[in-house]
Amino acid sequence: MGSALMDAIPPRGAPTLIAIGGDHAGLPLKRAIADALNAEGYQLLDFGTNEASSVDYPDFAHLVSAAVGGGPARFGVLVCGSGIGMAIAANRHPHIRCAVLHDTTEARLTRAHNDANIAAFGARLIGPEVALDALRVFLSTPYEGGRHDRRLAKLAPPPVQGSTDS
Amino acid sequence: MGSALMDAIPPRGAPTLIAIGGDHAGLPLKRAIADALNAEGYQLLDFGTNEASSVDYPDFAHLVSAAVGGGPARFGVLVCGSGIGMAIAANRHPHIRCAVLHDTTEARLTRAHNDANIAAFGARLIGPEVALDALRVFLSTPYEGGRHDRRLAKLAPPPVQGSTDS
Repeated sequence: MGSALMDAIPPRGAPTLIAIGGDHAGLPLKRAIADALNAEGYQLLDFGTNEASSVDYPDFAHLVSAAVGGGPARFGVLVCGSGIGMAIAANRHPHIRCAVLHDTTEARLTRAHNDANIAAFGARLIGPEVALDALRVFLSTPYEGGRHDRRLAKLAPPPVQGSTDS
Repeated sequence: MGSALMDAIPPRGAPTLIAIGGDHAGLPLKRAIADALNAEGYQLLDFGTNEASSVDYPDFAHLVSAAVGGGPARFGVLVCGSGIGMAIAANRHPHIRCAVLHDTTEARLTRAHNDANIAAFGARLIGPEVALDALRVFLSTPYEGGRHDRRLAKLAPPPVQGSTDS
């Protein structure tokens, strides 16, 4: 957003760069998504895991979030068993807005209203065709702006917490 | 978690305290959930909105998150159009683990694996019976601990961000 980091963003006409990562439970769906995105002309930054052995999902959420929030990637994709743990970890990053996607409706709404920049998926909950349809809508839906700008500006906790009557 | 704030938690045998909040889009579902929880013996802290006029969902996410993360409530419930914006704002709080729930499976998994303490719902995406079934499972499923403890300890971003090859 106007910072020196813009230098790292590919020039116009270059393929959209997408950071992708997942844990062991997410591996089959992550592979299916990566294959489809590659075939559709996206450029991928793959942070793994690419092995079946057990790993900790937040490690991958943080790598992808760093690549998207201030890093070179325009969007991120995270895959674990439910998508939920990934989204919690990703949303700890101030510049990330991560949604767990189950369908094209959520994909459309979260891009249009939340300007989401990472899509999370639960490999134990949805199949690859549903995930890919949702992801395609996610990648192609513009943010609406307008009244939503004011709400996005409030996503960070207010300075004084714990007071409910201020 | 062992702090002086434990003093604010109701004594054993007292009704479980649940903080609830939503925006204008979430109001019908929030009312249905509040009515059901009251009927089932829970004690509610209702942060609104209770009017149909347009409000900003993060305001309510932060109030509920403050009541749950270090506040008196054991769990929180957030309702907006999709649940997604609420969950992003809630998960900005270090002590909150908020999941958007669509069904009982997600409710079970996020309590068992993520020790989630706030459930978010999308009033434009699911109906009250589905939401209430999910919420009942959420409120009654214990956290599994074990290997998940290590992952929850990693939910916060690591101190050095922006480096993807460390």
